Amino acid sequence: MSAAAPLSPPAHWTRKDLLGIEDLSIEELECIFATAEQFKTTLGRTQKKVPSLRGRTIVNLFLEPSTRTRVAFEIAASRLSADVITISSNSSSIAKGETLRDTAQNIQALNADMLVIRHSAAGSALYLSKIVNIPVINAGDGAHEHPTQALLDVFTLREKFGKDLRKLKVTILGDILFSRVARSNIWCLQKLGVEVTLAGPSTLVPDMFTRLGVRVLHDLRAALAEADAVMLLRIQHERQTSTHFPSLGEYTSMFGLNRLRASWLKPGAIIMHPGPINRGVEIDSELADSSRSVILEQVTNGIAVRMAVLYLCASASPAARI
Amino acid sequence: MSAAAPLSPPAHWTRKDLLGIEDLSIEELECIFATAEQFKTTLGRTQKKVPSLRGRTIVNLFLEPSTRTRVAFEIAASRLSADVITISSNSSSIAKGETLRDTAQNIQALNADMLVIRHSAAGSALYLSKIVNIPVINAGDGAHEHPTQALLDVFTLREKFGKDLRKLKVTILGDILFSRVARSNIWCLQKLGVEVTLAGPSTLVPDMFTRLGVRVLHDLRAALAEADAVMLLRIQHERQTSTHFPSLGEYTSMFGLNRLRASWLKPGAIIMHPGPINRGVEIDSELADSSRSVILEQVTNGIAVRMAVLYLCASASPAARI
Amino acid sequence: MSAAAPLSPPAHWTRKDLLGIEDLSIEELECIFATAEQFKTTLGRTQKKVPSLRGRTIVNLFLEPSTRTRVAFEIAASRLSADVITISSNSSSIAKGETLRDTAQNIQALNADMLVIRHSAAGSALYLSKIVNIPVINAGDGAHEHPTQALLDVFTLREKFGKDLRKLKVTILGDILFSRVARSNIWCLQKLGVEVTLAGPSTLVPDMFTRLGVRVLHDLRAALAEADAVMLLRIQHERQTSTHFPSLGEYTSMFGLNRLRASWLKPGAIIMHPGPINRGVEIDSELADSSRSVILEQVTNGIAVRMAVLYLCASASPAARI
Repeated sequence: MSAAAPLSPPAHWTRKDLLGIEDLSIEELECIFATAEQFKTTLGRTQKKVPSLRGRTIVNLFLEPSTRTRVAFEIAASRLSADVITISSNSSSIAKGETLRDTAQNIQALNADMLVIRHSAAGSALYLSKIVNIPVINAGDGAHEHPTQALLDVFTLREKFGKDLRKLKVTILGDILFSRVARSNIWCLQKLGVEVTLAGPSTLVPDMFTRLGVRVLHDLRAALAEADAVMLLRIQHERQTSTHFPSLGEYTSMFGLNRLRASWLKPGAIIMHPGPINRGVEIDSELADSSRSVILEQVTNGIAVRMAVLYLCASASPAARI
Repeated sequence: MSAAAPLSPPAHWTRKDLLGIEDLSIEELECIFATAEQFKTTLGRTQKKVPSLRGRTIVNLFLEPSTRTRVAFEIAASRLSADVITISSNSSSIAKGETLRDTAQNIQALNADMLVIRHSAAGSALYLSKIVNIPVINAGDGAHEHPTQALLDVFTLREKFGKDLRKLKVTILGDILFSRVARSNIWCLQKLGVEVTLAGPSTLVPDMFTRLGVRVLHDLRAALAEADAVMLLRIQHERQTSTHFPSLGEYTSMFGLNRLRASWLKPGAIIMHPGPINRGVEIDSELADSSRSVILEQVTNGIAVRMAVLYLCASASPAARI
Repeated sequence: MSAAAPLSPPAHWTRKDLLGIEDLSIEELECIFATAEQFKTTLGRTQKKVPSLRGRTIVNLFLEPSTRTRVAFEIAASRLSADVITISSNSSSIAKGETLRDTAQNIQALNADMLVIRHSAAGSALYLSKIVNIPVINAGDGAHEHPTQALLDVFTLREKFGKDLRKLKVTILGDILFSRVARSNIWCLQKLGVEVTLAGPSTLVPDMFTRLGVRVLHDLRAALAEADAVMLLRIQHERQTSTHFPSLGEYTSMFGLNRLRASWLKPGAIIMHPGPINRGVEIDSELADSSRSVILEQVTNGIAVRMAVLYLCASASPAARI
């Protein structure tokens, strides 16, 4: 895995789409973070809107249930002064059996300037990006990637630990097997030189993940003791076709983050979670609300990061240069 | 109960939230009405928007079904040039079992400037107002309060009968027991010196309401004969866990407002209803459409009153002063 | 049937509502097309918004499932800088049993400036237009009319074949019996002097349609051989109470447009479809994507045409002249 590049002025962004973290360069990651930093300074204002995407139409195509990511993209788009139209999974054309390809082509023909897609199938964002010539932003494709989640997570780490993350150690704990959040984070963290450890029951964290260059530990104490940050994952009942652990109670008793286990963390270590949290399952309520938790800061950073992604991809798309 | 104060210049509004009518002062009520009067003059224009809340984001969190209140808040917010995001009860995070507190904290972390909440639990708006530091507007909390409905009702009474309501008599007729509209109106009317009578079957209008300082009458003729205005309430099937009257037909035959019973009203008396009306149940169709009815004027005034509430609470919130 | 008028400067538009094509004059049709042409030039811009309806509120009342028409109206309205509120069929007040009339009167009382209505009942748009004094736009009423679909179809024909359509021959193929799209197109095409042929199985294209002045052909080859354009219709399972053909497969084998049948078309003939298309049912996939297909151009033209309709009706309404 490559180490993080020395900080330099952001490279010019040339991608039409944001499909995943895996194929982004370090310079591209830095460009997103630098842009997000600038947008973050606008969030504290009373007048929070910037005119960057005035007159553009962004379509949010959310074919899998989501509130927080959908709302975050809606807010990010409206802060950039774009118009947003959300099409959700219970929409009729989808029910009428139109193909995803036809839906996407129709959205482009409706003169939308950008498409944000969440879909249960891995690869759906990539597929659409080849069909339409407007920018496609992946808001989660099956168990594959959720790039804006990883970007906001790492943006939060940079705020806490500085821009050079090369000496950082992060433990991702929980349902890795089914987690697009984990995949995107593994790629993002490794590109920036972070040492990544995966922890959890062996059924959810199989050893094959070591092929990605990460460490897999089933000893929770060891996994927590060295971490500067622990990223908890939500137990994703809704994407599991069969159960990979006996019960929620079993998971909680073995791997839930509670006061005892949090005491194994280093003094300055932080707790992260992409939300929505299951209080009392993967994390105890008091820890979610403790000073170690940066969960709500992650949410806020999600606006800044998504503004940056929408802005950069819109700026790089051919339509924008007409 | 205190009598209405002499009219004076509106006191400065200092509340972050509007949670209910019960704890508002007369000066605060007058301040809302004076502000709503000013906004009402903008409603007749072709260009109806005012820039007051430009760049702010208002989240409508409607966890109980509603169309008219939700749409009225959306229109009021957009008339003030705010961006509005609506999250409704079938949203997934709620389905995923996130707590109300976590949902609210996340909305605040998403940099929303204001939260409008409808919820089936009494006290939910108050609860959230203690958790988040952005303004919280109660759009109906269980059977407790629905303050903007009472404000628009009383605003309509002021338009019809003048700003000093101290000699007015209002009869509220129907399902008082389960009605947050009735509760908010009782408090609002009494603060302004109106004599309030409650009428309806004893199962829906128990005598314990006299503790609130109102008169309870089960003789409909007497209750209507003196009233300057009769406020009908919708029979709220959806919030009743058991039936408190034999049948809808029974209710209509005993207490539905029909031509005969309307003839008992004084010549200038008006008919009010918060909507949606059940034609042929609590009111006959011809009366709903008669010149006595101010039902649609109430709807219009709901925009002006909600603009006033959003504007005042936004102006008083700490964020606005940054 | 009247022939198309010679092209002249667009007559002044005086209608408050667009309820259907049947009672529009040729001059009114030309006025819509000329206005749509002007709006179409704005669609290619990065800044696509025009300030025409700034400060107006348009309510989309969609009481029948729809994605594409709803989204097209939302985009058209926001391109005109109007605020849009969509109320869809699963909304609660509707569920609470409020009448359509009360819903419409409430929308007007909410100070909406315009009402776009889709409803399963033929005549619903006309009915509402008599109740409210704001413009009513018919976005599809049962099996009666879908005027903006016909307008965008004919706008597309004008782009392909020139503004004088008097020598054109159009074949409409498919489920005519249940199609509001077919009805609106028959009226629109005939007014402009187009020779219209209907084709399909006799159960879906009964001979009684000849009363409308069109030709009915059950011989598909003959129906296709002369056509300059073939308009396919979607097989509308959802609006059929009983089946009028043995099976989808039966329909496809007899009347689906495939490579062989497309070879019967004249060289320059085009293929149209209102969407969403059933690939492999009424049209083969390769034909939908072929150079003959103008299906996606129809979608784009739908934005320009709907902007024109919203703009013209808003300009002609009394409120706009205050």
